[in-house]
Amino acid sequence: MRMGIRAAVAGASGYAGGEILRILAGHPEFEIGTVTAGANAGTPLGAHQPHLRPLAGRTLAETTPDALAGHDAVFLALPHGQSAAIAEQLGDDVLVVDCGADFRLADPADWEHFYGTPHAGTWPYGLPELPGHRERLRGARRIAVPGCYPTAVLLAMYPAFAAGLAEPDVVVVAASGTSGAGRAPKPHLLGSEVMGSVSAYGVGGVHRHTPEMAQGLSAVAGERVTVSFTPTLAPMSRGILATCTARAKPGVTAEALRAAYENAYAGEPFVGLLPEGTWPATSMTLGANTALVQTALDERAGRLVVVAAIDNLAKGTAGGAVQSANLALGLPEELGLTTIGVSP
Amino acid sequence: MRMGIRAAVAGASGYAGGEILRILAGHPEFEIGTVTAGANAGTPLGAHQPHLRPLAGRTLAETTPDALAGHDAVFLALPHGQSAAIAEQLGDDVLVVDCGADFRLADPADWEHFYGTPHAGTWPYGLPELPGHRERLRGARRIAVPGCYPTAVLLAMYPAFAAGLAEPDVVVVAASGTSGAGRAPKPHLLGSEVMGSVSAYGVGGVHRHTPEMAQGLSAVAGERVTVSFTPTLAPMSRGILATCTARAKPGVTAEALRAAYENAYAGEPFVGLLPEGTWPATSMTLGANTALVQTALDERAGRLVVVAAIDNLAKGTAGGAVQSANLALGLPEELGLTTIGVSP
Amino acid sequence: MRMGIRAAVAGASGYAGGEILRILAGHPEFEIGTVTAGANAGTPLGAHQPHLRPLAGRTLAETTPDALAGHDAVFLALPHGQSAAIAEQLGDDVLVVDCGADFRLADPADWEHFYGTPHAGTWPYGLPELPGHRERLRGARRIAVPGCYPTAVLLAMYPAFAAGLAEPDVVVVAASGTSGAGRAPKPHLLGSEVMGSVSAYGVGGVHRHTPEMAQGLSAVAGERVTVSFTPTLAPMSRGILATCTARAKPGVTAEALRAAYENAYAGEPFVGLLPEGTWPATSMTLGANTALVQTALDERAGRLVVVAAIDNLAKGTAGGAVQSANLALGLPEELGLTTIGVSP
Amino acid sequence: MRMGIRAAVAGASGYAGGEILRILAGHPEFEIGTVTAGANAGTPLGAHQPHLRPLAGRTLAETTPDALAGHDAVFLALPHGQSAAIAEQLGDDVLVVDCGADFRLADPADWEHFYGTPHAGTWPYGLPELPGHRERLRGARRIAVPGCYPTAVLLAMYPAFAAGLAEPDVVVVAASGTSGAGRAPKPHLLGSEVMGSVSAYGVGGVHRHTPEMAQGLSAVAGERVTVSFTPTLAPMSRGILATCTARAKPGVTAEALRAAYENAYAGEPFVGLLPEGTWPATSMTLGANTALVQTALDERAGRLVVVAAIDNLAKGTAGGAVQSANLALGLPEELGLTTIGVSP
Repeated sequence: MRMGIRAAVAGASGYAGGEILRILAGHPEFEIGTVTAGANAGTPLGAHQPHLRPLAGRTLAETTPDALAGHDAVFLALPHGQSAAIAEQLGDDVLVVDCGADFRLADPADWEHFYGTPHAGTWPYGLPELPGHRERLRGARRIAVPGCYPTAVLLAMYPAFAAGLAEPDVVVVAASGTSGAGRAPKPHLLGSEVMGSVSAYGVGGVHRHTPEMAQGLSAVAGERVTVSFTPTLAPMSRGILATCTARAKPGVTAEALRAAYENAYAGEPFVGLLPEGTWPATSMTLGANTALVQTALDERAGRLVVVAAIDNLAKGTAGGAVQSANLALGLPEELGLTTIGVSP
Repeated sequence: MRMGIRAAVAGASGYAGGEILRILAGHPEFEIGTVTAGANAGTPLGAHQPHLRPLAGRTLAETTPDALAGHDAVFLALPHGQSAAIAEQLGDDVLVVDCGADFRLADPADWEHFYGTPHAGTWPYGLPELPGHRERLRGARRIAVPGCYPTAVLLAMYPAFAAGLAEPDVVVVAASGTSGAGRAPKPHLLGSEVMGSVSAYGVGGVHRHTPEMAQGLSAVAGERVTVSFTPTLAPMSRGILATCTARAKPGVTAEALRAAYENAYAGEPFVGLLPEGTWPATSMTLGANTALVQTALDERAGRLVVVAAIDNLAKGTAGGAVQSANLALGLPEELGLTTIGVSP
Repeated sequence: MRMGIRAAVAGASGYAGGEILRILAGHPEFEIGTVTAGANAGTPLGAHQPHLRPLAGRTLAETTPDALAGHDAVFLALPHGQSAAIAEQLGDDVLVVDCGADFRLADPADWEHFYGTPHAGTWPYGLPELPGHRERLRGARRIAVPGCYPTAVLLAMYPAFAAGLAEPDVVVVAASGTSGAGRAPKPHLLGSEVMGSVSAYGVGGVHRHTPEMAQGLSAVAGERVTVSFTPTLAPMSRGILATCTARAKPGVTAEALRAAYENAYAGEPFVGLLPEGTWPATSMTLGANTALVQTALDERAGRLVVVAAIDNLAKGTAGGAVQSANLALGLPEELGLTTIGVSP
Repeated sequence: MRMGIRAAVAGASGYAGGEILRILAGHPEFEIGTVTAGANAGTPLGAHQPHLRPLAGRTLAETTPDALAGHDAVFLALPHGQSAAIAEQLGDDVLVVDCGADFRLADPADWEHFYGTPHAGTWPYGLPELPGHRERLRGARRIAVPGCYPTAVLLAMYPAFAAGLAEPDVVVVAASGTSGAGRAPKPHLLGSEVMGSVSAYGVGGVHRHTPEMAQGLSAVAGERVTVSFTPTLAPMSRGILATCTARAKPGVTAEALRAAYENAYAGEPFVGLLPEGTWPATSMTLGANTALVQTALDERAGRLVVVAAIDNLAKGTAGGAVQSANLALGLPEELGLTTIGVSP
């Protein structure tokens, strides 16, 4: 019997870790090795992830470099600030895929402004669809998985900047399901609070995903792009719907806008430009490694509007992580990933 | 026994009509007279509004001027295009409160662009909080109740324009509960479709509430304000959360921004500026005639961001209608209206 | 100005306490005095109950007998085990309305079996609709508010037993909204966990509300009634739907069954027997002090089935508490309470 | 390239048809051929099933025997009453898997009582876990897929009857997600109506799935089992939680009860008996061909209680259909099916 690629998952009792395991369990090349946790170490995985039936009997080890050693690939789904110390202890030949924020930002000043700690460094950014990124991910051994919001926003807006259609002042308002806020029990995340309610949070440019969006769009635009980002919490477990708008450059037409997106996404397996007249709904992407995008030109307001939907845990975290890991390991990029959502 | 103000409600089997009845039933001065419907005429109200227990046995009459005649006040919750013909047949001394769009827009060109029919006229606009509007509503006998989205957006943004703090290019992204789409059964409004999903619709400046927002803000700003408006559908029955942003005029500070809102809303019974650090959630307003507002200045993006939450059926429709009707009839503005939401 | 009845609320930062305050704030005879909390003492009420706009600035005192002294009525919304010590310190002339379990059960053995602590005693049971109970509540100064599930189940089933139609072996399966589980943040109550999911808990007769149901039905039946009770958690904030069934006594007809309920509830302001063909939905009762009931006779299975819907926080807790308090204080039973739900 | 098993799906624009396609698209042996619809014939599949990205461009043919001819397997997801006429026109060597009710009941009187039309016949019943059924499905060319509720209830209760532990008078109360009611737009299925609400329907033994439950349990019990079944509608798109109870035969212990289920399900790939203390939640099964079961003995009430959770569209319809089709076609029973749910 052929041996699979042995993968460890750190933070396996959380939502991101659980989704990584869900995808790896259906992946033909990966073999699930050690699963670790923080406070939940020593308990069975099934106590936290009862939906992962075949893995329910696994015991969670403590998240230490030792526990994670001896694998071909290590997926980290940890609070920010923990990845650097672990990655240092893992060999340079081990693929380390970090779903946390530590290695996403290139500018130490950005990092320090938003996180308040020293900058740990920068790893290849795991969004293969961005120009030039797919190549950097092939053979990489360290990958920084993008934040869930930036995944949606960058896929929504980069083609407009790549085609020179948008002014560099972007407004983003995005709705996220509650799983994006993690599994630590906090009063405002109780079902009684979130059901039947949409709320704003992190308003005014303070959300930590903001500089990541600006970084990605600025690189494509070749000039500094500012992003006004407002996240909102919606009464659903999963999904991000990002509404993105910027002033259109003079003379931009709806046709040119659409053509830019058709061109950008013609060959992309995981990004779908919807037929004209159809707008994204997050439910179309549930559990799938898919981003769905639609564009409009608002001529009265002089603005282009692009809406993207993803599953924050799938394409927004774990699916994106496995997609990049496939590239890094020389596997077909689509292996073990589906573009079909679970709906309704 | 003192006679109340006799009120008829047209469109009583729909969501807006039901909410008007709910509020009137608890109002100390109104007495509920005729209730009418279109296709549901002849059936008991309780078949459509089982939550309105004391009115369940009423029979719905057909919506005709005759059926609505003989009341002191008539509330119209009808599809647009039907109000003018009815209002003409009711005496000038009868208070007609139209929850439809027909008489909201002052500019016939705007009306014809967005509705494609001849302009019916303009009635006093039922948003007492807007500068000068409260006075116009006192003693009025025709009232155009604002759209649900414009209610939230105008309350969110007018103080910034009144204080000269914002550039006249506003971006609005708003999430609405599904009751805003009405009660006619359409596939995309099925519970199976909307639960667990946020979706965009009417993108690109085509939503009919857009010119109403621009009209209101332009009047306050004293210059033409453009609005880029994207509505989204959220998995909840009620509520609107509107996120509004505009570039800040040079030199605007967070303190000046907050002061403008404190000043605007200090004496308003139904608009609450939340304490700093607290952001609106639609659940705080469920069933209440309340708008909750919070402001932020994003210095990196050079933008002010204001978020407002309302119940689309309460302050956004029926509550606003009764508030304006109180003014028109010389009653205390707050009579029969609550600022307390049903939560959780 | 006439002085109101001064009421204190203990446990005001929780869901039950918040709902008591919501109802008292709209009650024409009560004046809200001290509000207290446990761990949240010292913080503003608005930090926990932002929907209670007019009370948002109140500061929560610590829950002590001293803080609660000096009121005409004290509503206790506390974890079980705390009420006895507080009530002892309040004068016999003070109305104490306990929303906890401490004084609901008459049989010390039942109490000790289900709660594992010594029995504190028995107070008049605050379900006026049960035979003989309304009279006992008039003028009472101590009231044990029923549990939310027992309220629904007793109203669903007592008329069948009062009319001698049912065998004394009842099966109850009930769905509750998550507010019934309280506000303490626990992982399984996170929105991400509860949305999109119905789950069972407390299966096998272990739920503490079980003996309360058996006690109430046995008293009406005049024989020992056993109850098999299974609670389930549904993805909604509020509401209980209780499905109750028992073998029909020989010869029972659907007509006799319905007649028993018409007879029982003809004069009841807060219990509605729905028209034939209409089945209860919890949304019909949101925020209202209403129980809606419907009956069926399943001739093939030889069983009667009765379904009841309530709002667990309203008729199921705070509304029931105020209804009983009205009786105790000699006020009209319906004062300050509505039968109209907030829907949709 | 090896040819797959060519499968047609009738009713492909509905929820059951969409789920069959979702599963077949990920199945290594099936190749998706013709997809048909009724009123939606002629439109692209993507207009109705936007989540099925790779199939979005397929055009729906009209549901006729001709359109369905020429396939190795035909999956019918049609309103009841349509399957017989189609199946007659398909060759005896074609596997016809009917997700409708037409061929589920063996007793013509039961059929006529509940459906009011002549009985079409009986096909092998597609619940391989029932004693003797797996054998009957191997090589079958006609399969009647069980109803979603009966799937949950039979898996919950058959082991108790197989082991002789239960009296033959079963009470079932089940909550279903709204997709079980299908996709035809009806007012009571609107999101505004179902969100935030649990409601009862089909009470009193009138639901058409009732005789199917009684038939299955009676066969195992060797005596006539009556079932009192109450379905309820819960605010979620997918999932069934069935709470089932029967009086325990004298002397039954909790250990004997659990042993019966351990014995029944030890080798079953798609039924999981949860660890003691864990109760099923429907979210554990989302999108998976899994039934999760837990048991309790309520000694005070003398009843055993068994709770089962499934995804009504997966194990409850489409997954069960493919599982049985695998058996019929000589494929491994688990092929193309997952036991891992999408959670949270």
